[in-house]
Order: sequence, then structure tokens, then C-alpha cells
Amino acid sequence: MQFASDNWAGAHPAIAARLVTEAQGFAAPYGASDLDKAMEARFAEIFETDVSVFFVATGTAANSLALATVAKPGGIVFCHSEAHVTADECGAPQFLTGANRLHTVPGLHGRMEPEALAAAIDRFPPGAVHQGRPVAVTLTQSTEVGSIYSLTDIEAIAAIAHARDLPLHMDGARFANALVALGCTPAEMTWKRGVDMLSFGGTKNGCWCAEAIVFFKRDLATEMPFIRKRSAQLFSKTRFISAQFDAYLENGLWLDMARNANAMAARLAKGLDGLNDARLAWEAQANEVFAVLPEAKAAAAEAAGARFYRWEVPRERPDLLESGEVLIRLVTSFATTPQDVDTFLALCAG
Amino acid sequence: MQFASDNWAGAHPAIAARLVTEAQGFAAPYGASDLDKAMEARFAEIFETDVSVFFVATGTAANSLALATVAKPGGIVFCHSEAHVTADECGAPQFLTGANRLHTVPGLHGRMEPEALAAAIDRFPPGAVHQGRPVAVTLTQSTEVGSIYSLTDIEAIAAIAHARDLPLHMDGARFANALVALGCTPAEMTWKRGVDMLSFGGTKNGCWCAEAIVFFKRDLATEMPFIRKRSAQLFSKTRFISAQFDAYLENGLWLDMARNANAMAARLAKGLDGLNDARLAWEAQANEVFAVLPEAKAAAAEAAGARFYRWEVPRERPDLLESGEVLIRLVTSFATTPQDVDTFLALCAG
Amino acid sequence: MQFASDNWAGAHPAIAARLVTEAQGFAAPYGASDLDKAMEARFAEIFETDVSVFFVATGTAANSLALATVAKPGGIVFCHSEAHVTADECGAPQFLTGANRLHTVPGLHGRMEPEALAAAIDRFPPGAVHQGRPVAVTLTQSTEVGSIYSLTDIEAIAAIAHARDLPLHMDGARFANALVALGCTPAEMTWKRGVDMLSFGGTKNGCWCAEAIVFFKRDLATEMPFIRKRSAQLFSKTRFISAQFDAYLENGLWLDMARNANAMAARLAKGLDGLNDARLAWEAQANEVFAVLPEAKAAAAEAAGARFYRWEVPRERPDLLESGEVLIRLVTSFATTPQDVDTFLALCAG
Amino acid sequence: MQFASDNWAGAHPAIAARLVTEAQGFAAPYGASDLDKAMEARFAEIFETDVSVFFVATGTAANSLALATVAKPGGIVFCHSEAHVTADECGAPQFLTGANRLHTVPGLHGRMEPEALAAAIDRFPPGAVHQGRPVAVTLTQSTEVGSIYSLTDIEAIAAIAHARDLPLHMDGARFANALVALGCTPAEMTWKRGVDMLSFGGTKNGCWCAEAIVFFKRDLATEMPFIRKRSAQLFSKTRFISAQFDAYLENGLWLDMARNANAMAARLAKGLDGLNDARLAWEAQANEVFAVLPEAKAAAAEAAGARFYRWEVPRERPDLLESGEVLIRLVTSFATTPQDVDTFLALCAG
Repeated sequence: MQFASDNWAGAHPAIAARLVTEAQGFAAPYGASDLDKAMEARFAEIFETDVSVFFVATGTAANSLALATVAKPGGIVFCHSEAHVTADECGAPQFLTGANRLHTVPGLHGRMEPEALAAAIDRFPPGAVHQGRPVAVTLTQSTEVGSIYSLTDIEAIAAIAHARDLPLHMDGARFANALVALGCTPAEMTWKRGVDMLSFGGTKNGCWCAEAIVFFKRDLATEMPFIRKRSAQLFSKTRFISAQFDAYLENGLWLDMARNANAMAARLAKGLDGLNDARLAWEAQANEVFAVLPEAKAAAAEAAGARFYRWEVPRERPDLLESGEVLIRLVTSFATTPQDVDTFLALCAG
Repeated sequence: MQFASDNWAGAHPAIAARLVTEAQGFAAPYGASDLDKAMEARFAEIFETDVSVFFVATGTAANSLALATVAKPGGIVFCHSEAHVTADECGAPQFLTGANRLHTVPGLHGRMEPEALAAAIDRFPPGAVHQGRPVAVTLTQSTEVGSIYSLTDIEAIAAIAHARDLPLHMDGARFANALVALGCTPAEMTWKRGVDMLSFGGTKNGCWCAEAIVFFKRDLATEMPFIRKRSAQLFSKTRFISAQFDAYLENGLWLDMARNANAMAARLAKGLDGLNDARLAWEAQANEVFAVLPEAKAAAAEAAGARFYRWEVPRERPDLLESGEVLIRLVTSFATTPQDVDTFLALCAG
Repeated sequence: MQFASDNWAGAHPAIAARLVTEAQGFAAPYGASDLDKAMEARFAEIFETDVSVFFVATGTAANSLALATVAKPGGIVFCHSEAHVTADECGAPQFLTGANRLHTVPGLHGRMEPEALAAAIDRFPPGAVHQGRPVAVTLTQSTEVGSIYSLTDIEAIAAIAHARDLPLHMDGARFANALVALGCTPAEMTWKRGVDMLSFGGTKNGCWCAEAIVFFKRDLATEMPFIRKRSAQLFSKTRFISAQFDAYLENGLWLDMARNANAMAARLAKGLDGLNDARLAWEAQANEVFAVLPEAKAAAAEAAGARFYRWEVPRERPDLLESGEVLIRLVTSFATTPQDVDTFLALCAG
Repeated sequence: MQFASDNWAGAHPAIAARLVTEAQGFAAPYGASDLDKAMEARFAEIFETDVSVFFVATGTAANSLALATVAKPGGIVFCHSEAHVTADECGAPQFLTGANRLHTVPGLHGRMEPEALAAAIDRFPPGAVHQGRPVAVTLTQSTEVGSIYSLTDIEAIAAIAHARDLPLHMDGARFANALVALGCTPAEMTWKRGVDMLSFGGTKNGCWCAEAIVFFKRDLATEMPFIRKRSAQLFSKTRFISAQFDAYLENGLWLDMARNANAMAARLAKGLDGLNDARLAWEAQANEVFAVLPEAKAAAAEAAGARFYRWEVPRERPDLLESGEVLIRLVTSFATTPQDVDTFLALCAG
């Protein structure tokens, strides 16, 4: 009953097998191998447009270096107040952008409110040297709390950003989970709606370590080779990242894995919602379920071996909990099975 | 005939197999899994002393973050003028240490001259706020040009550093190659001779991506968890780095791979030295051979499919080349075979 | 009718005269002159305790470098949401601390609520590498909106900080205005209440350029000489900063100037409060008056030559304005005269 | 007998008087006052071309922020090995440019050898991500050792830089001394010879604190307002910097002061050169004299109250000293008198 996070899972056997093949022979390092080059073409195919692709070591690196391409002295990036970049990356985006700042925007369930975003940006008049200046907007898809920006939402955010000459970045650490939930194409969820650059995460969805920065607006990528190297994020044996993505994207494996994760989350959500003394904190749209449980029940589940995190109540929902209740987060992955879910539900029903 | 670099090789089958096993099941991320903890114990065993171990993505990251632990405002790190940190890391050590500087020290064949090192450090009197202040010394073992610091050399460098209260860092991107060349224990080549922290590289010697910072002086590691995370170098699925090191260190695989690389370099060196119109630029002590060839012969070898780099003449050896000659670098690895070497030698003899 | 800011004023004649004297002769640069040394003794006398004193060019530099002494990788400084460090310094504190972050704390009228501060800090458990870690608390005295922390308030903030091993910094850009308002000694408003380091501003209160960082906890200052120099904040002819402070602190000139500024603010406040269609937004405790006026009246005053800023409504007071009203800020200084005030009041009464 | 440095001098009476006048009244801060604006026009007049001008606190700041405008990830600035930026600024240029590096170029007597400069730059092929990339060249006029680049020298350096698309910066901490030595116009010594941006120093030549960054290639200045503010270098009461420059540039005061300094250096040089047991280390072209003296004589002069620095022998002149000799530096200023010089010479003759 492992619901602590999707990064507790291992790797899909097909990805493991592909790496074994790749172990043989020689290849040019630093992104120059035939396979590396083929992967850029593969990404272009997946996204139905020319893209520039850069592999880095972690999702935090993908976010930080993507933002570094548009950072400026006194620059400010706008994100949701619970976004991973501001809440869980130890200041790496700030550090790796040369001390650009993050400005948080409120919004229910992990999504920036468009009006709040526009208002936040517009508090910085052009040339206001004391306050600093907006340089980018970043949204997380799916969000930190398992919700999803609809295509219309993305379009609205992009319109606000672009009207102010700001590029739009998407943190896609759980890109695939959002994609299969929306049932659209990768292009529709990104550049067709105004996303300029993307942190495309594979690690949480069945890879070992596969994170890519994808630029749809390719001229934003001009400085990236130097940004990546001076941030110590240029792997030598890049072929092994490429190999993971090769298997990941082959025959829709990535989508199948995301579908499993989402289906298991839906199963969890449905089961919990049917209990007398539990309820969903909000809708589970991807592979994360946030539920309110009696503290005693949560503790009992933990004692029985279930792994999950207790979560801080969002500031937008101050009255979420009643006395004796606790908010928990349950994350599913490609490796979650119906048995895992049902065992957990049985525990909670007990 | 692949002699461009040891990072053109793939990965050893035993390491590939170990990763397949590790792909299954769930494990705590961010260094908290049982396997991760076991690896710290394994490093302690290998080095015969308690150590603190931190995995990072690249050798450049290992060097940069190790130095970041001892960086100070106005700080200066001393290294050889051809060291990887100063010549090949795009300023990452400077960037990731908050703009500490590197001060280069001359010396024949990639090794800092102890007297030159002492003189360089002593030009910075204590409290000299305009000039800045020494904070560390770093040496590369084996060096960028295939030579090795003897145990006595390391001891001399360490004595100079420690007499000035400076920690000594070793860039061990090719640690194993030096180790088997010297025929000593890991402890003897490091902390027993005064090394305080080590970039321990596995990638060039048969791993896919396995780099560790090892602290012998463990109180230097206090800040490392935060330094690593804010530099975006904390992998989530650390178990896959641990798994690589697990196989790497098992039954001396790492030493066997390094022995093969060194033996192939020796075979190359011997063969080249026996030719009429080629000579070794200097002794090949590890897995890199630097040779002087007629330009035409080098070009012919390349045309026949041999891969290697032409190298800049070291400033300490301005008269190395005669007219029409070129300096080349040949690097061997765990994957180099006697056939590769002999084919190349036959080409050169032709 | 110049109420735009206290930095629109020039310099007090006594300070000008003192600089003319100092222009003659030779003196050691970089803080080593007799006068420079005497000033450190003078500060010690003023504060009734040994202090370490460092001159820098701007208030922003004083805040940023003070915080740099306690910055750490992943570090977070806590401040009020309207504090100068977060709202008006273009990210300089972040940049000059190596990308430490500022975390804002709410509170009415520019003062952090102690409970909110404690809660904000306690959301960062020790060793939480993803979130980062608290490194300092900074408060502004007097605040950005003309209010003052009482001695009890300071003590409460200090207790919260110190209980969590965090140093307390005071941004004293308007230190003197707060001091004379409280009628206490400099010691009572600082170290006796738990302040560990202070940005001591003279520029806004009648100097030309005189900003000092004062360390009561002197071991925090160890790194400051290098921090200051590598931030390009070490003046060569420091004697001219010392000379300004010499005249500033002589015979209580600094207190007299602050008393004038505060008295003029009180006169303004009283006058505005007596009008039918104006009111104070909150109490004017130092040298800044925030008033609510009909937009037409504010515009008329501006048209008649009055200089002041329109101000954004604080988020804690969303219902401050009625329709057609505007919030304005009026700042007085050592150079403000009763005539200036009365002319402005007459305008508003008209 | 004060020859330690030109920053031991105070300020010229005319500059002091001008500041007293400026102390009165109100003026817009942050560079927006009428006087501030007039100064930009004045600089344009002095340099016979439109310029962008930014005041900062120190010469180190001027150099660092000028270079920050052209810094890039992995960027490298080329300078002489004894240049102030690399030898005496505690890494501020590196810190304030986001860790761009300085690459030193050799050359006799503080001047980069053009061929050595070209060779140094050309070792960095375009796109060489591991090595980094050239971003600027900076030269010091007059140099750290009292020599001067001729107009032809500057042109040669500029040609090398521009042929490689690199901007040329001039560190003019002692600009006026070089200018009067060459007897040319400010325009001739700068943009007419290819200088793109200039650190224009007034502090060493009779101001209290007056340093400006002057952009001849004005589009390089686009980012400067934010770069300056986030580096905490934006004075509030800029009018007092403008006032200094106003008096400094009025009626050629700056040139008169520089002429005095240079004349006193020439008098010193001539006197020392006429002694039996002293000699000039090299020609004194501006306001610094480097002389070789018997150690005993130098010590005696110090004992008699003379102030100067002993200097490290340049690496290009390893055989400069004979046994028992010492190299000393004597710096003159606007405040140096013939009596000072003659007293010192009498001491040395004794």
C-alpha cells in the first residue's frame, strides 16, 4: 500500500530492458550521439512541431534552467502559491536564475486564478526599478494537489502572460497524467494553447531519471547549452537518458502508465468517497487523491503499513477540516495495482 | 578504434543487470532507501573509515558542490592550470560556489608543483580583503593528461594545504585508474595522505551515471544536503545510483574495469613508442596516452575510422612538437579491447 | 510642499560644514583612518555596548549585506509583506545573499504579527531540504507605513526568532524617527530587546550618504569585510562617511532632525484629521502620514504643486477606501517647515 | 610625504564648496533631479557624443556592473594579469556578473600584449560549452603600474575585440591622469578608438565619492538600471554625486588636478633617477612611480615618515631586483606638493 509518492516506484521493465541494450557499444557523449539526435526528432513528432530539447538531471533542474533562459536582473516569475518551484525546490530556481524571484498567486486547488495573476503582474509597472519586473509565468500541469488546468484555463493564463510579453512555462513533472486525463494531444495541451517551454518529466511516470526541457519557442533556447553546462547539468552519457525516453515514448507506453496511475487514483477516490467517515477534499483529476479522514483512521492505516503523507490545509480552504480530522495525500503510479488500492480501502472501511 | 574519451563507452553488463533488478518494487526516494543507506556503509568499508556520501548527476557537479562546502566570500581555490575544474567545466565551480575563484598553479604533466602551490597561496596574506583569500586546494587523480600523483606527491600537497588551514579536495573522475596504477588501497590514496573530500567518479569507468562526493572530514559535509538540493542535484530515485555503485564495487568490478583500461593504454603506449615516427609525449600512467605523430599519419588514422582528439601543447612544454607534428590524446576504457588497440597500431605503423 | 519622500531633502548645514573640514589633508582609506576608528567607538558609546560597524553605500546594501552574513544555502528570511527588503529593493537581498529567499508575514500597518511570524517559521521543520530553512528575521523600524514597533513588540519578535536560533535584524532606514517617537535610548530599542544587527540609516535623516551596518552580536560580523568588498561596497575614502556620522551624532543633531520630521508629520496628521472630507488611514507614529482623501482633492493639491505619492491599499485593509477616494503618503524630513505643512493643509481645506 | 595611494587624499575645496551649495533645498532622488539630468548632458559634451551615464559607489562597482551588462552564462572577460579587476577586487566582478570569469593576458608593464590577447581569446572556439566563451575585453587606463596605453595601443586592442564581436571596456579609475599624459581629448582616448564602455573615476582625482559608468555604445546600457539597483548601487540622493562631477568637470578642474598629480610623479621620477643607488623600474607615465631602492634606504624613508607600498615584482620582469633591493610604488595626487616630493627625495639622497 505504497501511496507516499510516485517517485517511490521503480522503473517499467520495458525501460529497464531498453537500457540493457544501450549499454553496449560506443557513442558520442554530451548529446551528440545518433540516438540523442533521434530523440529530438521524436519529441518533434510527439509535439507535432519543431522543438529544442535538453536533458537535465532532475525536475527541479528542468524548472530552474527553463526559467534561467528568461531570467533578467530584478526579474520575477509568477507561480501558484503551492507550486513545486516555490514550495519544494529549496530555492533552486532562485539560485540557478541568478536570484530572480518567485511571486506567488492564489487560487483554489493549485490553480492560479487568471484575474489574480493579471492583477499580480500589473502591480509591477514597466521600468519600476525598485520593485523589479515580471519575466515569466509558470503553471504546473497536473498541479501539486492533483487538479488539472483545462485547455481553456491554459489559454487564459497564456493570454495574460503574452499580453504582457511574458513567456509561459509549464512544469510538467506529471505531464502525462494530465494529458490522459484531458484526452488531448501533447500539442493541444502546450504550444497550441500558448505554452512556450515545458519541463517534461518522465521520472515520476516510470523512468529512472528522465527529465527534459522542451522549447516550443525555440529562440528561448539559445543560451541553454551554456546555462546547462555551467549549472553542472550536462550528462556525459546522455544516450542513457535518450534510451529511457525512447522506450517511454514507444507505442504509447508513457500514456499507458499514466492511465494506470490515474485509474488507480480514481478507484481510490471512489472508494474513499463511499465511506461514511471519509470524504474527498477536492476532486482527484490525475494521480493524486486528497482525502479527509478521522485522525484515528489515518493512524490505523499507517500502523497497518499504508504509506502516505499528511498534508497542510491550503490557505484557500481554511475550514476544510473538522475537529479530529486530518488531510492526507495519496499518490498512485504506473506500478500501483488494484490490489494495493483495495487493501487500503478495506483498511479504511474497517 | 574508439579512443576519443572513456565517456564514449556504454556500461558494463553487470551494472546493467543490477539496474534491471532494482527496477522492481518501491523504495523511499531522496537517499532514504535501504539500499541508499547500505551504500554509505559500503563506501565506509571501501575507504576503511566513516564517510559521508552524496550522489550527484555529473563529475562537474561533484567538483563544484564539494568546493561549495568550503567556499567563502572572496574565496579562492587552487588547482593545476589544466585541471578539469578550470578548463572544462564552463565556470560551473565558480557559479555553484557563489563566485569563488580558481587560481591556477603550474606544473609539468598535469601535476601542481608543490613549491609553486605554496608560493601561489602565500601571495594572499590573511585578511587581505582586496585580493581575496584561499579556501581550498584541489588536485586531479589521475590528471587530465594521464599522469598520476604518487602517494608522496599527494602527501606533499596535503601538507601545504593543511599548514595553511585549507582542505584538500581530490577530483577522482578517473580515481580507479589511478588506484590500480599505484596498487594501493583507496584509503592510502586519500585520507591517509591528507585528502579531505573526494569526487568519486564511476561514469567514466563503466557506469551510466554514478558520481559521488565522499567526505572523509565529515564535518565539511554539514551544509551539503541543502547545497545539493538548491543546486538541483538531488535525484528522487537515488536507488538507481546506489544500484550502479552496488554492482560497481561488488567483487572488485571497478578495479577490474580500471585495470583493463590501464592495460590497454599501456599496450597502446608500448606500440606507439616502438614506431619510428611516433613517440610518447610523456609517460602514460593510467588510461590516457598522449603521443606525438606526424600530422599526415594522424589524419590517415582518422580517415580510417580511428577516433581521438588533437591536443593543445601544454605551456610547460612549448618545444614538444617539431614541424609537421601533432599531439594526440588516446583514452581507453573498460570496453577497450586488444583488437581495438592493435588495429590502431597497425594503422599507425602503416 | 515637498512630501514625496525624505530622500528628496538635501543635507543639514552642519553635516555639509563637517565635510568641508574633512576635505583637507591625508588619511588612510578603507576604514583605517583615525576618524574611521573613532566612529566605531562613537557608535559603541551611542549604543552603550561594543559594536562592529561597517559603512556601505545604500540602505539596500545595508539590509542585503547584513542578511548575507547569516545566509545559508536554501536559507529563508522572514519579513513583513510590505517591508522594503521585499517590496522595494529589486531583489538585491536575494542577489547579494546568494539567492536566499524572503518569506513574507502578514500584519496590520507594516508590523509582523508575532503569532503569524511564529507560524510561518514553524512551517519549516529542521532539515527539510525541499522547503529550505529559516535563517533570520528582519523587522523595519519605523515601518514602511509610518508605524512603530513598541519595545514590547520588538521583544516579542526577538523571542520568537531566538527561540528558533534565528538572529534578528532591524532595518533602521528611519531609525531616528522611531527612536524619538518612543523616547527611549538606542540600546533600549535594539540589543536590549534582542536585536542582533541593525541597518543604521542616516541618509533619509539629513545626511548625504551615510549608511552603517551595526552588529551587536559581533561574531556575526566575521565574514563582513569580505562580503562587503566582493559586493563592491567598500568605499575608499571612508573618512567622508565617518565625517557625516560625526556631525550627525554630535550634540544630538540626529535626534533633533528626527524630532522635527516627526513633529511636522504630527502637524500634518492633526490638520488632515480635522478636515471634513479627509481622514488618517492609520495613526502616524513617526514621519510618514497616510491619509484618505477624495481623488479630486488630491489631484487639486498636486496641481497646486504639492508632491506626494498615491499608495496601494494594504491587503489587510481591503475596505479602506470608499468610492472616489485615494490613499496618499506624505513624508516629512529634517527640512520640512511648519509653513510647508500649513500651506498644504490650507490647500486641502480649500 | 604621503605616497601610499591617491585615495589617501581628501577632496578639492571647489568640490567641497559645490556640495555645500547642493545641500540646500529638495530634489528628486534616484537620478531624476534636474542636476542629475544635466550631468548626463555634461558627459555627452565632454565626450562629444551621446552617452548613457550611471553613478555607482566605487570603482569596483563601476567595473563589475559594466561587465555585468555583457555577461553571459559561461562568459569570460579578458584582462591583464595585474589588472585591478582580477587582482584587487575580491572577486566582485565575478560575483556581480553571476560568476563570469576573468582570463588574464600577459604583457609588460601592465599592458596586455595584443598578440597574446588575440591568442588567448582564440583558444575558445565558438560554442565550446565545456570551456566557456569570451564576452568582453577590459583594459586599464592608466594601468595599475603607472603606464599608459597609447591611442594606437587602444585601437589595436579594440580591433582584436571587435573582430570577435566582443565589447571593449576601459577601467578609468585614473582616466584623467592618462588623458593629460596623452594630451588628447576624452573622445579620442575612448570611443574614437573603439572603447564601448568606461568606468570613469573621480574619487582618486579629488572627489569624495564619484564613479560613473559611461556607455558609448548605448544599447549595452539597456539592463543597467536593474543591474544597478539589484546590486544595491543606486544612491537615493544622487544629486550629491552629480554635484561632485559638476565641480570636477567645471573649467577643467579635473584636468588641472590630474596635471598636478602627473607633474609631481615626474618630479619624483626625475629625482629618483638621478640618485646613485636608486632607479626607475619602468617609465612613470602618469601619477605612479615604481622605483628600485636598496631595502635599507626604503626602510629609512619609512622610518622618517614617508608612506608608500612595497610592490611585488611583475612576473614579466623576474630579474628586476638585485640582492638587497626592493621595488616600491609611489602615488601622487591633486594634493601632492613639490615640497612633499622634495622632502622625500632629500631623504632618499641622504
